[in-house]
Amino acid sequence: MNYLVEKRPFDVLNNALNNNVLVALKNKKELRGTLASFDVHMNVVLENAEELEEGETKRKLGTMFVRGDTIIFISPA
Amino acid sequence: MNYLVEKRPFDVLNNALNNNVLVALKNKKELRGTLASFDVHMNVVLENAEELEEGETKRKLGTMFVRGDTIIFISPA
Amino acid sequence: MNYLVEKRPFDVLNNALNNNVLVALKNKKELRGTLASFDVHMNVVLENAEELEEGETKRKLGTMFVRGDTIIFISPA
Amino acid sequence: MNYLVEKRPFDVLNNALNNNVLVALKNKKELRGTLASFDVHMNVVLENAEELEEGETKRKLGTMFVRGDTIIFISPA
Amino acid sequence: MNYLVEKRPFDVLNNALNNNVLVALKNKKELRGTLASFDVHMNVVLENAEELEEGETKRKLGTMFVRGDTIIFISPA
Amino acid sequence: MNYLVEKRPFDVLNNALNNNVLVALKNKKELRGTLASFDVHMNVVLENAEELEEGETKRKLGTMFVRGDTIIFISPA
Amino acid sequence: MNYLVEKRPFDVLNNALNNNVLVALKNKKELRGTLASFDVHMNVVLENAEELEEGETKRKLGTMFVRGDTIIFISPA
Repeated sequence: MNYLVEKRPFDVLNNALNNNVLVALKNKKELRGTLASFDVHMNVVLENAEELEEGETKRKLGTMFVRGDTIIFISPA
Repeated sequence: MNYLVEKRPFDVLNNALNNNVLVALKNKKELRGTLASFDVHMNVVLENAEELEEGETKRKLGTMFVRGDTIIFISPA
Repeated sequence: MNYLVEKRPFDVLNNALNNNVLVALKNKKELRGTLASFDVHMNVVLENAEELEEGETKRKLGTMFVRGDTIIFISPA
Repeated sequence: MNYLVEKRPFDVLNNALNNNVLVALKNKKELRGTLASFDVHMNVVLENAEELEEGETKRKLGTMFVRGDTIIFISPA
Repeated sequence: MNYLVEKRPFDVLNNALNNNVLVALKNKKELRGTLASFDVHMNVVLENAEELEEGETKRKLGTMFVRGDTIIFISPA
Repeated sequence: MNYLVEKRPFDVLNNALNNNVLVALKNKKELRGTLASFDVHMNVVLENAEELEEGETKRKLGTMFVRGDTIIFISPA
Repeated sequence: MNYLVEKRPFDVLNNALNNNVLVALKNKKELRGTLASFDVHMNVVLENAEELEEGETKRKLGTMFVRGDTIIFISPA
């Protein structure tokens, strides 16, 4: 594709590094934590992460490596 | 394929940049927001996005990176 | 494969360009609209599209970019 | 693989061209029609096709492009 | 991988050619028939095949091209 | 990746060759048998295999070719 | 991607080698054990592993080869 797209989707993740993000997973749970790193497969590492169910904190998980293909969206806080 | 297809599907996304779109997800939810960027995997970034359930706004999510393989369709408003 | 297949599946889509098609999706919904473009991933753009549930029009969606891997079949009207 | 397999699976589809086939889909429906073409992804085109549910004709669909990854099996009539 | 594995999984399919096999599918059904051919994608052709549900013959299907990615296991009779 | 990982996951399968293993499948069933071979796709052949449901032997299946993408884990006995 | 991401997701797994980790699977179960090895597909080997259901130990499984595509996340203890 030769479209002159000035902004690329991964820019949003790059700008969110070291900031708080909400990660929605295909298993209907959500995670909230600090985005520590990501790669092209959308694998991400969250720090100080917690798992949410229906908006409520379910448990604290600390550092997490999350597999990219389980993610629906990532939204910077 | 050597078909002389004058229009390509991604043209529609390119034309929709900076405009409002409806994004239907495989998890049965829908998103509405401004299409800020996309890539060949159909990953998209929405801004001023909100999540809809059965047509009703469920929550406002601001900026979202949405993984392409979770998308069913994208419809420009 | 060296089979001398004179007809190829994508010919059917090429012949259906600018014509009305029925698109069945893996989420059990169906779409009806004018086939405006397609690519090798079977991504398609429909125009004047409407979403059907159990054969009934559910809503009108105008132009839609539909992700190929969500499609079961495409049938020219 | 260097196995000396004299017969290859796709030979069966090649021999079935222009003949009637039964196509079972992952969504539990089945299609019956004339196999007009196929490709290496197992995308197939059926003509004079009808959709079956539990063995009963549900509707006639004429020409259909069926995406290969939705197919469980194809059985020549 | 440089492991000196003397036996390879596909040897089992090669040895089973022209013999009776049981094929378990992801849709919970099973097939029984003569293994006529297979390829590296694990696509297989069965002849004199029948479809089983909970161990009972449900219908006879004759020759079948079965898509490899729908298969859980193949067991020579 | 340039990590100096001295142990690799597939070493565990290599060491388990000709030994008894438990194989958990995505369809919730489990298999137990002798690991006769495996390949890089995690396709495995089990011998003297039996299918378990909730820990109980359901049936004996002898030799089985199990498709890698249906496997959750393999545990040497 | 040319982003200057100093930390990469797999660093977290590398640092967790020989330490205790929690592995969440797509089948809703979780595993806890010592991370013995991993590869780029996110296949991992756990030692002294146990399977958890709703936080409770269900059974002890010893050494396990876990297929990467069944994993949601890995969290170092």
